[in-house]
Amino acid sequence: MSLTPDSAVRTYIEQHRAAFLDDLTAWLRIPSVSAQPDHAPDVRRSADWLAAKLTETGFATVEVWPTEGAPAVFAEWPSGDPDAPTVLVYGHHDVQPAAREDGWNSEPFEPVVRGNRLYARGAADDKGQVFFHTLGVRAHLAATGRTAPAVNLKLLIEGEEESGSPHFRALVEERAERLAADAVIVSDTGMWAEDTPTVCTGMRGLAECEIRLYGPDQDIHSGSFGGAVPNPATAVARLVAALHDERGRVAVPGFYDGVVELTDRERALFAELPFDEERWLRTAKSRATLGEAGHTTLERIWARPTAEVNGIGGGYQGPGSKTIIPSAALVKLSFRLVAGQDPNHVEKAVRAWAADQVPAGIRCEIDFGSATRPCLTPLDHPALQAVARAMGRAFEGPVRFTREGGSGPAADLQEVLGAPVLFLGISVPSDGWHAPDEKVELDLLLKGVETSAYLWADLAENWRPTP
Amino acid sequence: MSLTPDSAVRTYIEQHRAAFLDDLTAWLRIPSVSAQPDHAPDVRRSADWLAAKLTETGFATVEVWPTEGAPAVFAEWPSGDPDAPTVLVYGHHDVQPAAREDGWNSEPFEPVVRGNRLYARGAADDKGQVFFHTLGVRAHLAATGRTAPAVNLKLLIEGEEESGSPHFRALVEERAERLAADAVIVSDTGMWAEDTPTVCTGMRGLAECEIRLYGPDQDIHSGSFGGAVPNPATAVARLVAALHDERGRVAVPGFYDGVVELTDRERALFAELPFDEERWLRTAKSRATLGEAGHTTLERIWARPTAEVNGIGGGYQGPGSKTIIPSAALVKLSFRLVAGQDPNHVEKAVRAWAADQVPAGIRCEIDFGSATRPCLTPLDHPALQAVARAMGRAFEGPVRFTREGGSGPAADLQEVLGAPVLFLGISVPSDGWHAPDEKVELDLLLKGVETSAYLWADLAENWRPTP
Repeated sequence: MSLTPDSAVRTYIEQHRAAFLDDLTAWLRIPSVSAQPDHAPDVRRSADWLAAKLTETGFATVEVWPTEGAPAVFAEWPSGDPDAPTVLVYGHHDVQPAAREDGWNSEPFEPVVRGNRLYARGAADDKGQVFFHTLGVRAHLAATGRTAPAVNLKLLIEGEEESGSPHFRALVEERAERLAADAVIVSDTGMWAEDTPTVCTGMRGLAECEIRLYGPDQDIHSGSFGGAVPNPATAVARLVAALHDERGRVAVPGFYDGVVELTDRERALFAELPFDEERWLRTAKSRATLGEAGHTTLERIWARPTAEVNGIGGGYQGPGSKTIIPSAALVKLSFRLVAGQDPNHVEKAVRAWAADQVPAGIRCEIDFGSATRPCLTPLDHPALQAVARAMGRAFEGPVRFTREGGSGPAADLQEVLGAPVLFLGISVPSDGWHAPDEKVELDLLLKGVETSAYLWADLAENWRPTP
Repeated sequence: MSLTPDSAVRTYIEQHRAAFLDDLTAWLRIPSVSAQPDHAPDVRRSADWLAAKLTETGFATVEVWPTEGAPAVFAEWPSGDPDAPTVLVYGHHDVQPAAREDGWNSEPFEPVVRGNRLYARGAADDKGQVFFHTLGVRAHLAATGRTAPAVNLKLLIEGEEESGSPHFRALVEERAERLAADAVIVSDTGMWAEDTPTVCTGMRGLAECEIRLYGPDQDIHSGSFGGAVPNPATAVARLVAALHDERGRVAVPGFYDGVVELTDRERALFAELPFDEERWLRTAKSRATLGEAGHTTLERIWARPTAEVNGIGGGYQGPGSKTIIPSAALVKLSFRLVAGQDPNHVEKAVRAWAADQVPAGIRCEIDFGSATRPCLTPLDHPALQAVARAMGRAFEGPVRFTREGGSGPAADLQEVLGAPVLFLGISVPSDGWHAPDEKVELDLLLKGVETSAYLWADLAENWRPTP
């Protein structure tokens, strides 16, 4: 196996890039926002669009799988080689909410190319990174002269990832036989930087909750009653303030139970990455770092569990003033989890902690959404090494290792299918996931296509998974 | 001065009560809702109606004073006695919005008597309590045989109180000479209960601010960045949590500077009131009391300065979840102030405190609105004693003392005119101010007439204000 690029692959991609981008643009026009019920028809339309496109690509079997929520798309293209490994590519076709007035410079669902970037909600997260596999597998066939991929290739593209994948686990359990694979390739992450290709080795998990505190039965006059009854907005603030200790650690008792600590080698690999804090802060649109004492920024975002406030609200937030004690307040919290943490245990710990914090006279309701487990693949896994090689050929240079601070349902696949999870992503931190002006770098998108084109032959040649 | 009622006053009131109630009913039919631009002509009509009625009552000078908003009515009736004190009665002729469908049992602007109650918007707040002075002054003249009141009597009845009195301060400053008085009688409050007549001795002041905290330039992904940068929603929560200490005191350094502490006598008088905490909690629609340690509920709402959160907000508050670190968060705070506190000093203290709390990387903006000063008249003030005596004669029983936790434009009169502010009100908590089915108890309304009838002679006889 050479680490040099393949000119046949590159030629094929160059010949087909225009049509590929036209197709992706058409898909991005579908506002498949899974969190907003109004967009449910769009999410279904997105699934149908993708299914048609995968059939056109050549997949032998393409099915839209209904769930209790939004549908997933499944596709399968057998290798024909009885010894070939089976690989399941995971991604999602739903997107985060987006509205022009959030600060977009163009309509989020009217894709536009500015410079060498394609701007649209879903351009990087995750339609672009799902879609590069369609041209990737065609380039693989064209370059190798095969009529079917070198691996048994399966795709599972879900429709509820941005809503916390509430029905994904059930779907995977129900369809486990059809999904059976020797490895899962998650195509929903990113790499270090445009000039630093990296392979991710693990993702944090996620537990999310909304805590609602209820005080007076209705808003009451802050003059007549102020200073004498519990205020739910104050209570919610105190709850949030108690969430961390003075060392930046999550102060919920039991939260850290089971956490797999970083090894010295992992810490050293993290430290080798060309990390420029000033530049990272610009990506984070932030002006200072802050977090758990005793850990670097990369350790904090990749390998340490966290608690963040995603939203807080209560009382009057409009212009001017309104002299009330509000009747209710809420906070939305998300907890990022690392290998070894159990979301159910975290939920129990948070419920007990919150109940303990709330003052008399305030009623507390907590809803947890479905959780996502953390996952982590060892650095020396042969399939992980194959991904790194394919990427090295596409990028013509060394590939380093990272982790992903975000979360995905990949962990369910790992758990139900018993397969290691690998990550292949070409998105960069500036792509603006979940933010206004989300974009994908077109050059990197095509490197994704190329990596996909190399990967299947490498895996088939260099990895014989033991059943 | 006897504390027994005056039969001449009672006879006069009895003879004229029907015409008095007919007149009040006619005034209540005018929907003088200052907050609704559609009703601006009605607010003007209400001012004209009152002006005509005050002329008919006998006031020597009656003027409708325009403002940049709704007009006020000014009336003056000199005593003729060069040594007589000058008293300015304050009230308002505008009312809160009201619509049948809000839960009224009859049309809010079609006054109706059910039982011994007159139901209409404005019956208690404030038309009824303004209007009782018209029959009061006539009864005073009839009983004493005078042709002019024993005091120089002035009335200022504004038209924008229910809209926050936006032009009141300017009006008072502009007309300060015409309004000059030795005491201000605010006729826009209430008493403890139907069977417990009380005189209010002060109102809390009010300072309000909005604090906005800015973190990342836009919402950022809580997976990619969570745990490593400051979150403005967390920061705003910590700010609010730091607002009070563990004893429920406001923890802003300098906040209590100058506070006039309750005397033992005042605390004892508060404690004498028939306070039923369970019943009070029902009024507060709340399930527990909570506040500054070492103080009773009445002390907390009447005589202690407080800080309350009127609103808090930041990040995603809609259904479901959104895994972001929000770019900004805000909190709206209101501070109730007591005698001795200077709103400007409080503003400075809060600004310094907030700047001190905010972590590196978070930018803080604070806006203070216009403040209302606290006011308090000492229990032994001769004019206050006269109000209590007049009320005691009308009610034929002891009169107790309260304070008001809310804030009002009375403080502007105190400050601009340099006169003490007294409160004379016969409304009770069940009158439903700002609520559906607002009413006034007719027996209490006539006690208001009677109190007004006794007050002017008592003031003239027992009080010689020093200039």
